Amino acid sequence: MDSDFGIPRELSPLQQLRSQYHPELPPCLQGTTVRVELGDGTTVAKAADAHIIARAFPHSLGQPLAHFLRATAKVPDAQIITEHPAKRVGIVFSGRQAPGGHNVVWGLYEALKVHNAKNTLLGFLGGSEGLFAQKTLEITDDVLQTYKNQGGFDLLGRTKDQIRTTEQVNAALKACTDLKLDGLVIIGGVTSNTDAAHLAEFFAEAKCPTKVVGVPVTINGDLKNQFVEANVGFDTTCKVNSQLISNICTDALSAEKYYYFVRLMGRKHSHVALECTLQSHPNMVILGEEVTASKLTIFDITKQICDAVQARAEQDKNHGVILIPEGLVESIPELYALLKEIHGLLKEGVHTDNISSQLSPWSSALFEFLPPFIKKQLLLHPESDDSAQLSQIETEKLLAYLVETEMNKRLKEGTYKGKKFNAICHFFGYQARGSLPSKFDCDYAYVLGHVCYHILAAGLNGYMATVTNLKCPVNKWKCGAAPISAMMTVKRWSQNSGSTSIGRPVIHPAAVDLKGKAYDLLRQNAHKFLMEDMYRNPGPVQYDGPGADAKAVSLCVEDQDYMGRIKKLQEYLDQVRTIVRPGCSQDVLKAALSVMSSVTDVLTTISSSSTSGQQYA
Amino acid sequence: MDSDFGIPRELSPLQQLRSQYHPELPPCLQGTTVRVELGDGTTVAKAADAHIIARAFPHSLGQPLAHFLRATAKVPDAQIITEHPAKRVGIVFSGRQAPGGHNVVWGLYEALKVHNAKNTLLGFLGGSEGLFAQKTLEITDDVLQTYKNQGGFDLLGRTKDQIRTTEQVNAALKACTDLKLDGLVIIGGVTSNTDAAHLAEFFAEAKCPTKVVGVPVTINGDLKNQFVEANVGFDTTCKVNSQLISNICTDALSAEKYYYFVRLMGRKHSHVALECTLQSHPNMVILGEEVTASKLTIFDITKQICDAVQARAEQDKNHGVILIPEGLVESIPELYALLKEIHGLLKEGVHTDNISSQLSPWSSALFEFLPPFIKKQLLLHPESDDSAQLSQIETEKLLAYLVETEMNKRLKEGTYKGKKFNAICHFFGYQARGSLPSKFDCDYAYVLGHVCYHILAAGLNGYMATVTNLKCPVNKWKCGAAPISAMMTVKRWSQNSGSTSIGRPVIHPAAVDLKGKAYDLLRQNAHKFLMEDMYRNPGPVQYDGPGADAKAVSLCVEDQDYMGRIKKLQEYLDQVRTIVRPGCSQDVLKAALSVMSSVTDVLTTISSSSTSGQQYA
Repeated sequence: MDSDFGIPRELSPLQQLRSQYHPELPPCLQGTTVRVELGDGTTVAKAADAHIIARAFPHSLGQPLAHFLRATAKVPDAQIITEHPAKRVGIVFSGRQAPGGHNVVWGLYEALKVHNAKNTLLGFLGGSEGLFAQKTLEITDDVLQTYKNQGGFDLLGRTKDQIRTTEQVNAALKACTDLKLDGLVIIGGVTSNTDAAHLAEFFAEAKCPTKVVGVPVTINGDLKNQFVEANVGFDTTCKVNSQLISNICTDALSAEKYYYFVRLMGRKHSHVALECTLQSHPNMVILGEEVTASKLTIFDITKQICDAVQARAEQDKNHGVILIPEGLVESIPELYALLKEIHGLLKEGVHTDNISSQLSPWSSALFEFLPPFIKKQLLLHPESDDSAQLSQIETEKLLAYLVETEMNKRLKEGTYKGKKFNAICHFFGYQARGSLPSKFDCDYAYVLGHVCYHILAAGLNGYMATVTNLKCPVNKWKCGAAPISAMMTVKRWSQNSGSTSIGRPVIHPAAVDLKGKAYDLLRQNAHKFLMEDMYRNPGPVQYDGPGADAKAVSLCVEDQDYMGRIKKLQEYLDQVRTIVRPGCSQDVLKAALSVMSSVTDVLTTISSSSTSGQQYA
Repeated sequence: MDSDFGIPRELSPLQQLRSQYHPELPPCLQGTTVRVELGDGTTVAKAADAHIIARAFPHSLGQPLAHFLRATAKVPDAQIITEHPAKRVGIVFSGRQAPGGHNVVWGLYEALKVHNAKNTLLGFLGGSEGLFAQKTLEITDDVLQTYKNQGGFDLLGRTKDQIRTTEQVNAALKACTDLKLDGLVIIGGVTSNTDAAHLAEFFAEAKCPTKVVGVPVTINGDLKNQFVEANVGFDTTCKVNSQLISNICTDALSAEKYYYFVRLMGRKHSHVALECTLQSHPNMVILGEEVTASKLTIFDITKQICDAVQARAEQDKNHGVILIPEGLVESIPELYALLKEIHGLLKEGVHTDNISSQLSPWSSALFEFLPPFIKKQLLLHPESDDSAQLSQIETEKLLAYLVETEMNKRLKEGTYKGKKFNAICHFFGYQARGSLPSKFDCDYAYVLGHVCYHILAAGLNGYMATVTNLKCPVNKWKCGAAPISAMMTVKRWSQNSGSTSIGRPVIHPAAVDLKGKAYDLLRQNAHKFLMEDMYRNPGPVQYDGPGADAKAVSLCVEDQDYMGRIKKLQEYLDQVRTIVRPGCSQDVLKAALSVMSSVTDVLTTISSSSTSGQQYA
């Protein structure tokens, strides 16, 4: 890491304009009084995991949700925090860069300064490595000047997205102790927030007073659960990708001779690909979740695309745009099995040259069938989270190659009578990830930064900052915090010996919900998108006028507000308690008992079946 | 080609807003009177080419420049055209798609309708092939509705960028005759406009009344000469590319572990790469023109990059962004020679498998040294203009591969002590080419469309529409037309036999001027860009507020206005003529003779040396 982090720099006219923009705060965060209402203790999504998670999180499991309320809110149980002793807080970019990350720092800084001018915010330079090495930069107005509402993580930089090994957590503990931190805010995705929860637990166990807070910042949009509606950076990334995809659709339609295969960064799941499809209406998207659900092989997918190309050619359309999530390769069963075998052999230290000969016969046959460029990419060492190096595996080229081979075969056999199939491949990721953040990401990140302060002021440890009701305007946003451990699940694998191996509790990345409204919207339109070239161009991200306040389609169609509903339920329960106070009539009590008994029965039945059947993560 | 061209479609909110935008006209084109001033007859840029060009263009060479003037302009010689008999005009997208092309159609349509409601504009469906096949769509308000200020060429589509063979020009003649066209407007770059000039000559010879007009529309920005300052589409393309490049710079600076090698579409010359460098300040750019001027080999370039990587590593910077124009491969002498040999063998019908063995020893050695992926790409058949398939040759990957190999060698030898070199490669082209056009491109294209009408109203044939003074606001723009033949030059090659082979007169794409101000600006900043990470993020193209009216840096720094200066000179000459009228004093006459004699001497000397030394095209 170099010493250039956080230096002032020359801004373009648009960057200057953006640097002047000041996001508004929702009413609940305005003013200098923090009002926090602690709800019921949380449970975990899968009942079966409860005891394993409890063992890993003795200090934090079952902690209540926190809701931050406006100063004038009439909630009898809300705790009002009026004393704000000077705090020292550290903040670190742990996950991969995502547009908007800088605004978390800014929001937290402003909240700190509003509540006590003596509060101090230290940014760790160079991400987690800067945390371990205690390299800090004190955040000031001057430092923030040219980074407000700007993209990237270059204010502080980032390195590894892991705070996990004994050495690492000890270094983090030492840093927080040496620097006398009251709070440590960790910015990142599923991995970083998982590590934040474990670190919080480790700190609590070690009686370290530093409270750890996580913030959901990842372009992948896969840190989604009951408590978290969206991730900082997803909105901008999807908008920039959609801008480029729709440009390519326009290009395809202008010359009518190419099929564009566009792979999209977004890790294992297909949130980015789904959202971009809903924004720009390309002809086709292959979602990893669909492939998994239908157990499609690479040959099934190839055939699906070829049949689409053929159907379009029959309507004299010899062009098209097909989106491919980068995680697709791990969703295709036989490729996933092959990758697992390769990774296993790599772990055993087998040299890449010798791997092919040591694969199982089936995997070996598949491997030998693949073109050389993809073989080389499959042989790359896996990432820190054991997944393949998805950004390096050119699945779009593999599919284009297989489709071309098949179309040429059909052409020769006379079953396909269209023009020669021509593909051009793209990978969109890095060029969106560093983008100037959209208004939504600027606002969301800034508010999350404020929420971090309120969490620390309330003395909570191991929580993630949450903002819900995001599809509404900022003045309707609800702010809160949820224990990170309540978002965790546990994976189980059958071992060869017949026994079951149990994983560490982690936040698993959420898959695209094939029963959700966003996916439903895609399915309703998929045939029209495929055949009718309904290309839609959202254009470049705007900061004024139409489109400037646009939000992700998948955010707006989903009917989320889980946190709001939890609050509503509590209100009903409170009302019942008020109505059925001791002294009420026998009839009222009888009616209440009868109704509540059946409510309890129904919920018990539903929740036992949902925990066995449903995968939240 | 399918029947979907020109159909109305659903627009996004931003597209809708843009479809409502109406560009303004410069004062000279306002109103319904056309005033045209014809200047002196034109000459060609290189005197030595004059007789060859004259032979090819007996009807059009030496035609005067045309200036369109405001109705109230007091120019005695200006011809005023007040009669506007109904005209039938055809328009065709001949070149590759470029943002803004639709506005040429719109501008021409509006000019036609303003001057005579009975005027008809026919768009050829499917580009040049639609012209040959006489497939037309009558342009109406309804047809234009969802295409105003929108990107792509999908209103009419395009196919081949050639109207050149006997068969093709005869088909074009037949189409114009059958459809009774008074004018044919051809939209495209150097190739299309060259063909337009030859077609105009062919029509004149065949006594076909259809006048042919060319419009400079190409993302490459290489149709630049004394008369043409800029090309429609270049501005948008450079802005979108710069947006993405600067996002990648931000990304590089956030994680500090990658070198990004970005190849940019733009054909043989490096205008796009130069402009994007001036807009986004990446660490390095390798301009083809510099490579040609310094005769750098691929190994020189590799060393240059490696030395830069090493110098940056010494300052603890292990990241960077390097731009590479797609035409670079043809600027590197030994690769160009290799390509020429390969193309020669392909033309002789040698199968790609046997080419390697038939290369000259030197080329064969180079070919065998190259990695397999690039070998395969070099063996692709050349394009219609005999250049390599530049978009398919991944020069950025070749350079990244060579740099990595060299850096690993230096690391092993201990001469380089930095981190392991990691490269990520990109090719930006298609995703910019289909973009929503910038305000500048919308305005410029719309005005050019109007100019086309004025050219036809003045009865001119073989002219290109021109707008100059473009760096000033629209109300200062000057509109005119120049004979396309005056932009042509001729290439000469020494044959093996010692004789000289002479090419057909064409508009050669203009190289980046290494004596120009834009290049000078780059040179002044190159070292700072390399070492100091002065990344600048112009952001996504805006349509309102700061940056919305930005123009290309290379357009703004150059001091062009050739057409304005030609007019100014004519004014001086006229003044001299007025002052030195018969009857003036002997002294005045003597003084005039003496001064004009020395002026003539100086100009004769300069222009003979400039024609021998300078390459305009």
